[in-house]
Amino acid sequence: MSLDEFGLIERIRRRAGARPDVALGIGDDAALLQMPPGQQLVVTADTLNAGVHFPVETPAADIGWKALAVNLSDLAAMGAAPAWCTLSLSLPEASPVWVDAFADGFFQLADPHGMALIGGDTTRGPLSISITAMGHVPAGKALRRDGAQPGDDVWVTGMPGEAGLALALWQRQRLQVTGPASDAALEHLRGRLARPTPRLAAGLALRGLATAAIDVSDGLLADLGHICERSQVAAEVLEGELPMSQMAAQAGEAEVFRMLRASAGDDYELCFTAPASQREQVFESMASVAVRVTRIGYIRAGSGVRLVNGEGTVLATSRLGFDHFSAAGQSADH
Amino acid sequence: MSLDEFGLIERIRRRAGARPDVALGIGDDAALLQMPPGQQLVVTADTLNAGVHFPVETPAADIGWKALAVNLSDLAAMGAAPAWCTLSLSLPEASPVWVDAFADGFFQLADPHGMALIGGDTTRGPLSISITAMGHVPAGKALRRDGAQPGDDVWVTGMPGEAGLALALWQRQRLQVTGPASDAALEHLRGRLARPTPRLAAGLALRGLATAAIDVSDGLLADLGHICERSQVAAEVLEGELPMSQMAAQAGEAEVFRMLRASAGDDYELCFTAPASQREQVFESMASVAVRVTRIGYIRAGSGVRLVNGEGTVLATSRLGFDHFSAAGQSADH
Repeated sequence: MSLDEFGLIERIRRRAGARPDVALGIGDDAALLQMPPGQQLVVTADTLNAGVHFPVETPAADIGWKALAVNLSDLAAMGAAPAWCTLSLSLPEASPVWVDAFADGFFQLADPHGMALIGGDTTRGPLSISITAMGHVPAGKALRRDGAQPGDDVWVTGMPGEAGLALALWQRQRLQVTGPASDAALEHLRGRLARPTPRLAAGLALRGLATAAIDVSDGLLADLGHICERSQVAAEVLEGELPMSQMAAQAGEAEVFRMLRASAGDDYELCFTAPASQREQVFESMASVAVRVTRIGYIRAGSGVRLVNGEGTVLATSRLGFDHFSAAGQSADH
Repeated sequence: MSLDEFGLIERIRRRAGARPDVALGIGDDAALLQMPPGQQLVVTADTLNAGVHFPVETPAADIGWKALAVNLSDLAAMGAAPAWCTLSLSLPEASPVWVDAFADGFFQLADPHGMALIGGDTTRGPLSISITAMGHVPAGKALRRDGAQPGDDVWVTGMPGEAGLALALWQRQRLQVTGPASDAALEHLRGRLARPTPRLAAGLALRGLATAAIDVSDGLLADLGHICERSQVAAEVLEGELPMSQMAAQAGEAEVFRMLRASAGDDYELCFTAPASQREQVFESMASVAVRVTRIGYIRAGSGVRLVNGEGTVLATSRLGFDHFSAAGQSADH
């Protein structure tokens, strides 16, 4: 069965959630949207290509979830409230079954966050998903990369490295991306790769508290490096403080996880800085949104990121690159 | 020579124009933008894929121009002022020469319109360009598809059919897309396909005058059909009133042009409706922006679009489809 572009658009359009600030949604030359007064518009765009950003055999529903998740994660890292998005979908064939499953995953994530799909197109081509996500934040309240100060703590949410471990296990064929894994620990890890959780509530809770923030897509040290570069500061990350995944341990992969957690990408956790005087507030704000948070280091004057162990030995620096900590193969370049 | 994603982004980023309403541009997790008060945000997204939306041998600069032009054309059809855009670029290889040429064409069109590139990404994959363009319009003043009324005139800007003729000449190998054509008329036609002019000034001038508008991407009759569907009216187009291209005639292609002008897409002219009482104002407003405009028919009660000749014979109706008027081959599905 084959559908033309209008059929596919209609299939997705009838699932698009409504928002009172969407004056005109899909179906005209463009959408008309009402910005709340006093807010800045926050805009991000990310593309996922089959075989580059996800294994080609990934289920359509997981692709739909993840394509939106990577964009929502950027809004989270700005402390923005999500609002609207456009979706450009290139498909090798017009398969309504595939499109419906893709929409299942997409709207499973979009709907609870009140994210309205307001435009886009479907075209014929190799499988590729481009999303532009829009949100808003009170003027001057966005979490940026350029506000980190010497003396600030460095924090990270969740369990960075689990998605990278899942990818490594898939590459070793211990894990399939097409369906449930053989035990609960492996299934948890698979879920971190297939359906990452954008930390939107955490981002909102960190407004006025974090001095800088970024989402962990390239790897913890690399992304912290972007904060340091934009803030013109240096960071020390204490290897022993990085959180250890119980699920990795249960899966018998504690050592591999330890190798990956500082450098693997695709977790979409938030890495942020906050004044040392605000430690209690950071713990309380993250507890209020039920997000695990770990203090992993500090900001100092200088440039670059260093990973150090308990004896003060430097395990890696951004000048040398973090490649020897990277999982081989698939890279997450978003 | 090969560049990583950051190198390519940096290459494009340093060419991105500045706007005072861009509080934070490329380089953070998302851009921060200041909406003017009292305006609605206008958002559209379109993707071009190599081999589907343009011949694979199209020069990079023309691709850069056209990928932005099709999006600006949607803003024009809403009567919106252009402001910001994101660009997601999938490239088979990281070629700085290609990226620079692409940026040449892109910014040749973006800069005069004050369109700021505020985000996006580059990924590895088959050549594909996804753009989300944003603009604004005073609340309630947008040109929509759903306002056409029985008794309104139907108008079109420019010379619809010239891009379709150029495509047909390329398919017959009378025209190359890679460089200048052999004479001025052919070169003009090539330019209409390679570098369409989004009718932004015309769209602005039609605020408060047009009752409905759309840009001609799928073909004049098909796009007018979208207005009729959304407005719940019918349209009669008078074949003898459709403008005749002197350039097509000079190229010895008058007959082919006549076959194409009602149905060929890719021209990005505006088709709009306006009350018959406003004819002088329509001519004056289009003269004020130096855009040719032609009255080609009228709106009546009913549904569908009919193309009729001087004797009142129906040449085509939307119920039968306009396919027998279409150029074979490449279709413009945006």
